[in-house]
Amino acid sequence: MFPLVLGHEAVGVVESVGDKVHEVAVGDTVVPVFLAQCGECADCRSPRSNLCSALPNRPGMPRDGTTRFSLAATGEPVHNFLSISSFAEYTVVDAAQVVKLGGAAAALPPEKACLLSCGVATGIGAAWKVAAVEPGSTVAIFGLGAVGLAVAQGSKMRGATRIIGVDLNPDKLEIGRKMGITDFVNPNDIGEQQTVSEAIKGMTGGNGADYCFECIGSVSVMAEAFKSSRMGWGKTVVLGVDGSAAPISIPSFDILKGRSVIGSHLGGIKPKDDIPVLAQKCLDKELELDEFITHRMGFDDINRAFDLLAKGKCLRCIIWMDGAGAKGNGA
Amino acid sequence: MFPLVLGHEAVGVVESVGDKVHEVAVGDTVVPVFLAQCGECADCRSPRSNLCSALPNRPGMPRDGTTRFSLAATGEPVHNFLSISSFAEYTVVDAAQVVKLGGAAAALPPEKACLLSCGVATGIGAAWKVAAVEPGSTVAIFGLGAVGLAVAQGSKMRGATRIIGVDLNPDKLEIGRKMGITDFVNPNDIGEQQTVSEAIKGMTGGNGADYCFECIGSVSVMAEAFKSSRMGWGKTVVLGVDGSAAPISIPSFDILKGRSVIGSHLGGIKPKDDIPVLAQKCLDKELELDEFITHRMGFDDINRAFDLLAKGKCLRCIIWMDGAGAKGNGA
Repeated sequence: MFPLVLGHEAVGVVESVGDKVHEVAVGDTVVPVFLAQCGECADCRSPRSNLCSALPNRPGMPRDGTTRFSLAATGEPVHNFLSISSFAEYTVVDAAQVVKLGGAAAALPPEKACLLSCGVATGIGAAWKVAAVEPGSTVAIFGLGAVGLAVAQGSKMRGATRIIGVDLNPDKLEIGRKMGITDFVNPNDIGEQQTVSEAIKGMTGGNGADYCFECIGSVSVMAEAFKSSRMGWGKTVVLGVDGSAAPISIPSFDILKGRSVIGSHLGGIKPKDDIPVLAQKCLDKELELDEFITHRMGFDDINRAFDLLAKGKCLRCIIWMDGAGAKGNGA
Repeated sequence: MFPLVLGHEAVGVVESVGDKVHEVAVGDTVVPVFLAQCGECADCRSPRSNLCSALPNRPGMPRDGTTRFSLAATGEPVHNFLSISSFAEYTVVDAAQVVKLGGAAAALPPEKACLLSCGVATGIGAAWKVAAVEPGSTVAIFGLGAVGLAVAQGSKMRGATRIIGVDLNPDKLEIGRKMGITDFVNPNDIGEQQTVSEAIKGMTGGNGADYCFECIGSVSVMAEAFKSSRMGWGKTVVLGVDGSAAPISIPSFDILKGRSVIGSHLGGIKPKDDIPVLAQKCLDKELELDEFITHRMGFDDINRAFDLLAKGKCLRCIIWMDGAGAKGNGA
């Protein structure tokens, strides 16, 4: 699938539209999203699903599998990525995959708007839409990357009073506190006699957490998250993708005690319905996204951004295609 | 744990009560249930749990672990079963474990009332309380014993329009139809080229079922039930207990597509709240329990009832302790 144009978490302004596009117009601020929302299929019409069945994920543009990019010199096709390809000054995105930020939401600064395009929306959505965290709940989050920290933000937004973060990286403690984490478990620090789930049960009067979120993509951590969930109503939400395609293993006796496991794409967010709601919550300061932005840089520095990501040294690096927004920011 | 008095699905009349018992009185019709409902613990106060944490299942009477039975000759203790021991003319049950059928519900015939004590309530509850089946849904039920057929009844009660039954026993077809099953899959009849989940997807336009219920107690069937569930919102409810204690294995990629797995005891039924509701639904003919009663006999014939159960030749054999209700019924 090379050559291709990467990138999918973004915000942009509509430059032109096709003949049959009426939902957005030139000049609109839009957030592109890898999940389509056609609005008409059984899934789009149901409040229970966010996986559009008319335009499921596929290589290329969602309706015909083609790409709109080509090499100027030879005409050879250049593939797109998740039907978005936002590492470009101009791209072509299907109308079903752009969310208009209209009205008050248009005032959201672009560096925050782009965060709602994937990872941060996924974490917030997992707490809001998938788990439907209840006020006063105890939450445990496995993995404090941007997605896990967004789960913390979403859980706080839903009124959780105790948010336990689990991560091997001690640097996550400080940033975690800013994002709503109230208690930490570092698996390296709990001693060999104790598993993480035992530590979490010990911190919660033997009960375990009401909601557990796996934000790493490891089936062994998924099993540990499940074991950390409370009897009676404990819900384990799987957000991470295990690249090994190994199965999740759940003790059958334990699931009978009122526990459940649920997974989702994009935290159950229906893009066109829910992203404008999140944008409004940002403007109302119900959600604080500032702490996710650890770096700002121009597109020329993008390889440095990838290095920071690989080393766990950033949460989100905002890439300004023209470098304008990156000026004057220590990165 | 021998000697012991078995039996736990029952109905009876209160003969006497302890000093501190105010909830039921002499002469009340009551259904004993293996799950307590103290009404005061965090679980009883939450609508999300039916697993009383103040009086969890334990051997013996729930508050002190003792038994009220002993051998007349030697005084040696005789153990009880699930704190109920209903294969007896008289038994002692904790007030937290009896459900009063008062008002109109007291008119429910005893041979139907006793069905609400465990298995049938479990199946109906799984569709009603755990899955919350929506009108127009497609349901797949793996295993058509009394619990699976009760899931069919519960699904019909909730407005499911298509109810697919899966069983190896061809005799289940006739009884299944009477209980609301609309389509059958016999794994022996679908050919070696196809799995059960593939057959179910083939019957549902490639989608799979909205709700899948495992009523056998086999982790391999649990995995097949999960595979039969629809992308976007498919829910798999585990009711069966796998005696091997083997784990359930779930493909991690598939759960990310909006699917979930949930388990429960007693179909999520909160005994004192929900069993009277089910009794009323029986009286209102919203639920039809007659077909569950395949045999009636006196206590002297109980070993024949066990034989019928082991051979899959009965659904529920009603055991009349004095034999009165069994007279004149072909068993």
